[in-house]
Amino acid sequence: MSYDLQAITEPGRKLIAVAESFAPTFFARVAAHDSAGTFPFESLRELQESGYLYAPIPVEFGGMGVESVHDVLVAASRLARGDAGLTLGVNMHMIMMMTYAQQYRAALASGDDAKATGVGRAMARAVGDRMVIAAAVSEPDQELIRPQTTAHPDGDGWVIEGRKIFISMAPAATHFSVAVSYVDPVGDERYGYIVVPADAPGVTVNDDWDALGMRDSGSTSVTFNGVRMKRGPGSGVLAGIISAEHLEMILTSGPSHAASAVGVAEAAYELGIRAFRSKLEKKGERAFRPTFQHLAAENSVDLAAIRAIFDRSLRGIDEYQARHLTGHGDDEEANAVFSDVQRAKIFINQAVLRVVDRAMTIAGGAAYTAGNPLARLYRDARAGAFMHPLGANVAYEYVGAEALGLRPTTL
Amino acid sequence: MSYDLQAITEPGRKLIAVAESFAPTFFARVAAHDSAGTFPFESLRELQESGYLYAPIPVEFGGMGVESVHDVLVAASRLARGDAGLTLGVNMHMIMMMTYAQQYRAALASGDDAKATGVGRAMARAVGDRMVIAAAVSEPDQELIRPQTTAHPDGDGWVIEGRKIFISMAPAATHFSVAVSYVDPVGDERYGYIVVPADAPGVTVNDDWDALGMRDSGSTSVTFNGVRMKRGPGSGVLAGIISAEHLEMILTSGPSHAASAVGVAEAAYELGIRAFRSKLEKKGERAFRPTFQHLAAENSVDLAAIRAIFDRSLRGIDEYQARHLTGHGDDEEANAVFSDVQRAKIFINQAVLRVVDRAMTIAGGAAYTAGNPLARLYRDARAGAFMHPLGANVAYEYVGAEALGLRPTTL
Amino acid sequence: MSYDLQAITEPGRKLIAVAESFAPTFFARVAAHDSAGTFPFESLRELQESGYLYAPIPVEFGGMGVESVHDVLVAASRLARGDAGLTLGVNMHMIMMMTYAQQYRAALASGDDAKATGVGRAMARAVGDRMVIAAAVSEPDQELIRPQTTAHPDGDGWVIEGRKIFISMAPAATHFSVAVSYVDPVGDERYGYIVVPADAPGVTVNDDWDALGMRDSGSTSVTFNGVRMKRGPGSGVLAGIISAEHLEMILTSGPSHAASAVGVAEAAYELGIRAFRSKLEKKGERAFRPTFQHLAAENSVDLAAIRAIFDRSLRGIDEYQARHLTGHGDDEEANAVFSDVQRAKIFINQAVLRVVDRAMTIAGGAAYTAGNPLARLYRDARAGAFMHPLGANVAYEYVGAEALGLRPTTL
Amino acid sequence: MSYDLQAITEPGRKLIAVAESFAPTFFARVAAHDSAGTFPFESLRELQESGYLYAPIPVEFGGMGVESVHDVLVAASRLARGDAGLTLGVNMHMIMMMTYAQQYRAALASGDDAKATGVGRAMARAVGDRMVIAAAVSEPDQELIRPQTTAHPDGDGWVIEGRKIFISMAPAATHFSVAVSYVDPVGDERYGYIVVPADAPGVTVNDDWDALGMRDSGSTSVTFNGVRMKRGPGSGVLAGIISAEHLEMILTSGPSHAASAVGVAEAAYELGIRAFRSKLEKKGERAFRPTFQHLAAENSVDLAAIRAIFDRSLRGIDEYQARHLTGHGDDEEANAVFSDVQRAKIFINQAVLRVVDRAMTIAGGAAYTAGNPLARLYRDARAGAFMHPLGANVAYEYVGAEALGLRPTTL
Repeated sequence: MSYDLQAITEPGRKLIAVAESFAPTFFARVAAHDSAGTFPFESLRELQESGYLYAPIPVEFGGMGVESVHDVLVAASRLARGDAGLTLGVNMHMIMMMTYAQQYRAALASGDDAKATGVGRAMARAVGDRMVIAAAVSEPDQELIRPQTTAHPDGDGWVIEGRKIFISMAPAATHFSVAVSYVDPVGDERYGYIVVPADAPGVTVNDDWDALGMRDSGSTSVTFNGVRMKRGPGSGVLAGIISAEHLEMILTSGPSHAASAVGVAEAAYELGIRAFRSKLEKKGERAFRPTFQHLAAENSVDLAAIRAIFDRSLRGIDEYQARHLTGHGDDEEANAVFSDVQRAKIFINQAVLRVVDRAMTIAGGAAYTAGNPLARLYRDARAGAFMHPLGANVAYEYVGAEALGLRPTTL
Repeated sequence: MSYDLQAITEPGRKLIAVAESFAPTFFARVAAHDSAGTFPFESLRELQESGYLYAPIPVEFGGMGVESVHDVLVAASRLARGDAGLTLGVNMHMIMMMTYAQQYRAALASGDDAKATGVGRAMARAVGDRMVIAAAVSEPDQELIRPQTTAHPDGDGWVIEGRKIFISMAPAATHFSVAVSYVDPVGDERYGYIVVPADAPGVTVNDDWDALGMRDSGSTSVTFNGVRMKRGPGSGVLAGIISAEHLEMILTSGPSHAASAVGVAEAAYELGIRAFRSKLEKKGERAFRPTFQHLAAENSVDLAAIRAIFDRSLRGIDEYQARHLTGHGDDEEANAVFSDVQRAKIFINQAVLRVVDRAMTIAGGAAYTAGNPLARLYRDARAGAFMHPLGANVAYEYVGAEALGLRPTTL
Repeated sequence: MSYDLQAITEPGRKLIAVAESFAPTFFARVAAHDSAGTFPFESLRELQESGYLYAPIPVEFGGMGVESVHDVLVAASRLARGDAGLTLGVNMHMIMMMTYAQQYRAALASGDDAKATGVGRAMARAVGDRMVIAAAVSEPDQELIRPQTTAHPDGDGWVIEGRKIFISMAPAATHFSVAVSYVDPVGDERYGYIVVPADAPGVTVNDDWDALGMRDSGSTSVTFNGVRMKRGPGSGVLAGIISAEHLEMILTSGPSHAASAVGVAEAAYELGIRAFRSKLEKKGERAFRPTFQHLAAENSVDLAAIRAIFDRSLRGIDEYQARHLTGHGDDEEANAVFSDVQRAKIFINQAVLRVVDRAMTIAGGAAYTAGNPLARLYRDARAGAFMHPLGANVAYEYVGAEALGLRPTTL
Repeated sequence: MSYDLQAITEPGRKLIAVAESFAPTFFARVAAHDSAGTFPFESLRELQESGYLYAPIPVEFGGMGVESVHDVLVAASRLARGDAGLTLGVNMHMIMMMTYAQQYRAALASGDDAKATGVGRAMARAVGDRMVIAAAVSEPDQELIRPQTTAHPDGDGWVIEGRKIFISMAPAATHFSVAVSYVDPVGDERYGYIVVPADAPGVTVNDDWDALGMRDSGSTSVTFNGVRMKRGPGSGVLAGIISAEHLEMILTSGPSHAASAVGVAEAAYELGIRAFRSKLEKKGERAFRPTFQHLAAENSVDLAAIRAIFDRSLRGIDEYQARHLTGHGDDEEANAVFSDVQRAKIFINQAVLRVVDRAMTIAGGAAYTAGNPLARLYRDARAGAFMHPLGANVAYEYVGAEALGLRPTTL
């Protein structure tokens, strides 16, 4: 597969190599998990053991020191060539790791040694304990800027109540990062995250993931029923409004999902080409059809566009974060970078459908049998347009408002 | 669902009413069959008993006297709203019934009483025996104008050898109409059909249909292993060349498959609208999103185009057959009508993907769960582009050649 | 050009033959008019003299008795192959003629002999005087259900004040049918039409049409400055609301514009094919490119869809008018048929761009020279999406609302 | 206009600033030149005087030292926002300048001081003489790897015979870089370039550019009639075959044309947004239409993809040239980079049509008047798909062959 996306940092280059080393093995396993709807625990374990899962963490705390969001997500797209469903949950975990690392760099840059020490310790623990953190954000009938799941102070701790859905990797998570509404000391309603161990009393991982595609992603629901935690939610923002801080908080979420779609597109593209090459070997020139050539051209154009827009939007995140290492962008700038990554997500989610469709035509009738990888990718490819923070039902509205110079009002 | 396609004959109007009466019941059953990959025997039995299956046969022989291909296939599109997979096989059977009825009318018109009597008897038997005939045409690595399955004269009869795939409705068929190559008395290689009882020695219906979609269509393979028949293949054409007779023989095949896709598009469109209406009832104005409105507009435009091109191409078939009741068109005219129905099939197979995609976005995340009808339709919708006589891999080449005034050379 | 749209009535068949007889002559003239931005008076005169312009009028009053809207507009699409700009204005005139004929049939059917006589006389006069009526409807910054142009009673007559734009065929019109707001005797604000002679004092046809395409359409502005008429506006509907009567009044307007686009698509398609055939003759096999074949296929599919959706939407109008010969449909039915013709217009206006684009690629660099017919059609093709009653800026909103079961509120 | 493409080198940053400073002035002038079909001599003179035209040349020879092809072409896209037609010819000149600079760097790197000195002198002369070099490559009925224009040795010099078309900027060129076939000393037919002064005897610049769009580009034909030159063609490659050297020679040609299309897309996008903002100011909320929001979203997505794929393909050129500073890539690598820039060109040429179309809908009917900038951009936007080296008629074939692992055989 030529013109693959490349890392922009040296640690990122290594991470991508790790991802590439796993992809074929994961691909060999994924069919069975897809068919049974089971989570690929063994693949996740290998990612854990290889250090992939802790790549954003500085080397001194046991990670690989990959600071670039671009590189982490390009690596994710490589992983997704092998197993797009697994990649969904892994990416949510990686967001947590990137957030830790970023907080650490920010603390250092602003001379806040206490915070740096604290975050450093958290990172060391994450690595040492081989933590696997799933994101518990989605809810039925969701208002994305005001979770229905709540955290209430109670005695010397907090109590969490609520039900979350689409929690990828839930069956294998050691912890959940739960988005909650809570009231802060001055009485403002805020939205923040609280990390909850999977084995805390009151946490129930429901075995209810049975979907069209991404069937091995383990995106079950999880119930939080009177779950008691010592510490309350951190890094909260005002609930109900779209602020720069909020947009920054969820900035990497869209491209994390898009990374899976990129991998799906790349895998499908390659399977189409391979199917043609294999016919060519068997049947010689008779295998050639001008339609294959035209569809291969269109697919290579779409794939080039997918990669380019993904690549560029990720560079934009790196640049944004570099500009605001120790603070926040203003609303306009935050909205601009957020819109840019949503544009990439919109494009990729549509283009991947075209790429898979054409690859199936090139491959022929076999691609329609249940066990064929292209049949799986056809189902996987449709997932992205449902995914947060802006599913296709909201994304055009948001991005269009921004383009027209209006203030987007909904997520 | 407004602006439904309408019959152009009175018997056709009745047939469509029959189809509409079944669609909801079939729809209620299809999810279970889709999930298990089982054939909907009970639905087929109801079609048998209602007379739907014998609709093209003249009333005097026990049919409904529906002479219009247009009406038969519009009825099929209604049936497909309920069960698109079942409709695939049923349509192949209906082609046999239409062929009988057409041969009968031709015999009458040309004063060939003997032939009329013979065909009349065959039709009466088909109705009386509640025959269900599946089309055994496709083969692996197929050359559509020269089957690898053969019929050889042997003693006073014929012996059939070969393996057919994608035989929709095979588990329930009482007979198979098998496409074979054979050598005629003057030594020419020909391509014709021979009807074989499903219980003839040497016929094995393999339980091997497990596909991405159309999972209840029972499109298994069937092996014909030394199957002995008294009578040889009929209505054969020269093998290996594209002739007017050959194109006429397979003329209704493409639109029969397209009819299923039309039903899929209509069902998906409707499910999208209903999902919106249901949100609206529950949540009031909050349910509204401008994106829903835009996607609904695009869907209604695509659906209108799907219906129109399907309708017009079917009228073209009726007119062609009326012009050539007792003979054949010339190559150019046959090629023109054949290309026209292929254009319709190409358009419908692409447009149905767009319609289902948008309906899913309108319906929201629930549409991605395995049991959701839209998830099934998403899988079913991709079938058409693989289907004969011109899958998407060949259709552009054929239709493009005709458009440029070149002679298409491959099927 | 195969699979041309066909008439559904015998008088319609004759009208189409007339249109086809003119198309090549008009085509030969149009380049010069396009370049200079002049109106093709000679072509219009030929239409006048041939009786084409009075085709909808019953034979007994000097017309051709073409009652079918379908047939009138299919004929218009043929004319547009030769001169799409001229066709725009001609079609607006034809709407007037169709309206007369329809009022006449309605009067007869409801036994209103007085009205029948009156309308009959008007029709005879239109034919006898060789009237050419242009539609003066559009206004700058328009609200389509409440014209800014007004008619006020004054003494024993009425006075018209206002400025209209995009009045196709204005330079050649003998009369204008002017959309005006007025207050009826009971004080309601209404919207109606009033026919004004082009040479009435106060009417100024401004020489201000200079557009990207449809350059010979003479779509100038016209000023009505204290224009005095004896009779007030007729057939008025309440202003400011979307009623069944209003929708019926403007029902044929969208497809009249679409008819031009259909002709543009057909002409462009044909020019692409001819360019290829001509290369083939000159250069032999070397002229062939697989891309030509693929684009020709896509073009033939799009053209088939354009024709089918146009044809079917026009049949829908005929059926609607037949159902409501002497009265009005209810709001839902009127909205349904109106939406259906808008869907056709949306589809055609987008598809024609694709058809012209591909034809240009097939034809090669010559198609980009100013004088090349394809260069003209490229410019002409973009006109439709701006045209009333629903330009592309409003059409999706309207049609989407109808599809979702909401009541459209804007035109 | 946010998320503009950015330079990757410091000299490039300055060049882009220069381009941005000219764009508004050029934009103000272009309407008149477009209308009259005249070349914008004054704008070209300003580019000459500003040093823009000599930017790739090292500072020591009077240039700006912009070594990055990426940066030169991003600057070109900025220029094209103001005047896309002028940019076409300017870019061809810039390719010459980039070629000089690259040959110079190669000579230095390989220690070939004599060559370095010679090229340095040529560059100094180009700057000193304010040379403006137009590319004379295209021919009627062209075979791109074997020009029909020839150079023959004659006495102590060479004689050039032929006719070239589509020579952008011809009316203002001081020199032409003419693609010719010639026979080298060992008898091989080769393809190379020879630089000819515009005032050499036998050179005739024909005043024959009158096109649909890019009307101010001065893309006339030029006749070379027995033109005598002292020196023969340089850097020739074997004629009639596609070699790495040939592909490298024309590598920047496609993206140079694409740069104009990028500028057209950006300008059209911006005009659409401005038209909306201006309506909003005048009419307030009434100006808002959900369709505007949806189209603006789709446009912003397409524009993001256009920029990203352009950006990434240009980085690919820089990297390729850096890898092969003193030599050539192998066929596979050359073909890969060439295909990648063609993919970008294909994508951009299609996407720009969508962007302009939507911007026109947002802007409303005014966009269809002849003098409106969007009407011009609509015409300009269609140029790219005709442009070398791979017009849309060949590009899919080439790129599809490469994608399938076949060897492309035609240009």
